[in-house]
Amino acid sequence: MKQITLAHGSGGQAMQQLIGELFMRAFANPLLNEQEDQARIPLHELTAHGDRLAFSTDSYVIDPLFFPGGDIGKLAVCGTANDVAVSGAVPRWLSCGFILEEGLEMATLERIVTSMAATAAAAGITIVTGDTKVVPRGAADKVFINTAGIGSIPGGLNWGMRQIAVGDVLLVSGTLGDHGATILNLREGLGLEGDLQSDCAVLTPLIQALRDVPGVKALRDATRGGVNAVAHEFAASSGCGIELQEGALPVKSAVRGACELLGLDPLNFANEGKLAIVVERSAAQQVLALLHQQPLGQNAAIIGEVVERKGVRLTGLYGVKRTLNLPHAEPLPRIC
Amino acid sequence: MKQITLAHGSGGQAMQQLIGELFMRAFANPLLNEQEDQARIPLHELTAHGDRLAFSTDSYVIDPLFFPGGDIGKLAVCGTANDVAVSGAVPRWLSCGFILEEGLEMATLERIVTSMAATAAAAGITIVTGDTKVVPRGAADKVFINTAGIGSIPGGLNWGMRQIAVGDVLLVSGTLGDHGATILNLREGLGLEGDLQSDCAVLTPLIQALRDVPGVKALRDATRGGVNAVAHEFAASSGCGIELQEGALPVKSAVRGACELLGLDPLNFANEGKLAIVVERSAAQQVLALLHQQPLGQNAAIIGEVVERKGVRLTGLYGVKRTLNLPHAEPLPRIC
Repeated sequence: MKQITLAHGSGGQAMQQLIGELFMRAFANPLLNEQEDQARIPLHELTAHGDRLAFSTDSYVIDPLFFPGGDIGKLAVCGTANDVAVSGAVPRWLSCGFILEEGLEMATLERIVTSMAATAAAAGITIVTGDTKVVPRGAADKVFINTAGIGSIPGGLNWGMRQIAVGDVLLVSGTLGDHGATILNLREGLGLEGDLQSDCAVLTPLIQALRDVPGVKALRDATRGGVNAVAHEFAASSGCGIELQEGALPVKSAVRGACELLGLDPLNFANEGKLAIVVERSAAQQVLALLHQQPLGQNAAIIGEVVERKGVRLTGLYGVKRTLNLPHAEPLPRIC
Repeated sequence: MKQITLAHGSGGQAMQQLIGELFMRAFANPLLNEQEDQARIPLHELTAHGDRLAFSTDSYVIDPLFFPGGDIGKLAVCGTANDVAVSGAVPRWLSCGFILEEGLEMATLERIVTSMAATAAAAGITIVTGDTKVVPRGAADKVFINTAGIGSIPGGLNWGMRQIAVGDVLLVSGTLGDHGATILNLREGLGLEGDLQSDCAVLTPLIQALRDVPGVKALRDATRGGVNAVAHEFAASSGCGIELQEGALPVKSAVRGACELLGLDPLNFANEGKLAIVVERSAAQQVLALLHQQPLGQNAAIIGEVVERKGVRLTGLYGVKRTLNLPHAEPLPRIC
């Protein structure tokens, strides 16, 4: 079976073939087809939609490469697109850097690249520039992907953590911990059955539905560290506190099962297609209704509020409040 | 001694500390300091300097991490900056994604980050957004870095391979193969002495000196695969051929020594601070003189010409022409 060799990363003929036969075919678009050392994007395509460039990057090292609901390629598009999109920008262009381990099956790479291309195309995103490195067997684990993304932020839209104030309300766009629990189940061989599937998705439609709603203040996609990590960032940046209601947290029963089994909290689990949103109290019901109209927002819920007392707290099912610390580490490495 | 642990990539407290105490301090700038999920760059800062966004990415996996003339951090800034700069854009903003191996010495990471920060600052580049992943021991080799870079291409400047035509002249901005020979010497323990040092440098000043010169057609920094790989790209994209003069190639004696010892050709060696430039014949002397005025262009030379007959050929010291094939692979993996 055909495998990646060191020659595929060497700048010689083998690399040109890999680029030509795999990447250029899968990602084909006029900007990429120029094959210069950089993509050249007309600035009027950015200024027509906003006044600031949103620019973000993430590397993806997830293990395993394929999982229910997605794979590293889909994740590499969704994750970076979402980091751009939470600014209010529509993510439009991605760069893509592969680090491949010598011996990687070509069929595995093809499956990943095909998935990236399909995810990007469905979200109106084009992959316009890239890079491929190959390292000797044992110097990396199969494949790592970095993507960087850009889009333009509409004029007048200033979503950000510093807008957050006491009295605001915190929502999430759906069930918590689906991605983390799926990877945990798969990797640790927990053998949990039921509806365990990564929520990996591009959130642009959900976010754009909120674009013109006054009172929306800050958005984050709650990935590594889960909603708890985002709540801590919101609290630290705004100088306020966050209080969450345990009974209000939307969690699938399969995810709750995995958490109970292992003594873990779904608030700390990674999501790959969920927003944490802070809005003015007066806008909360409108935002909730808008989220519910979207396929990706069916299980949106109001889960807490911004309070004066610093820190993050959770009110349990019996009304007892406890402080939620930010854990030193997440339960799982290589979750994304 | 303090080492990187899995917790440093987990989205919890340890990661926040690493970001706050190392990255935010070393790279500090107003855009990064916002600490949102994306940098927000005013578009007027781009439109003031051009009409197209230049966008490029590279991952860096070089082994060893430190070498005469540079290190992986310096390389990660220079390499991507140069890929943006050869469009005629001034590289301004970089993203930065780290993949760290559990157990990496914190002092090693600090040295790399400090070097990145210094290289960026010296070149007027700011690192505005980033990401950190940690993988378990053995899943990566110490540290890999991805950077993506942006800048704006001045209106009316259309350097590119498709401009190349028969009769044009090929120049290089300095001695060939310094980076490749340095890494080879270090890694293979060749024990060569003399002036072996990577040429790793940000080429913006050299490139901007050519910006207003009519007759400049296409620029590339000749990295992996060396000048030979660039010549093949120029030939393939333009539909012409390239003929090089062996006697005209600027090569340091230490590099020539390494090549003779191993039976390798400096034309295939990686550079990290050298341009290959195609210009109209009438502009060649002017371009050469401009390059010679720049510190990075002291050893610039005219090395060949664009001809009708397809392919890349080298005329040897005794006047014999031979075809230069693009090797299947480069002599060394992990050269950049």
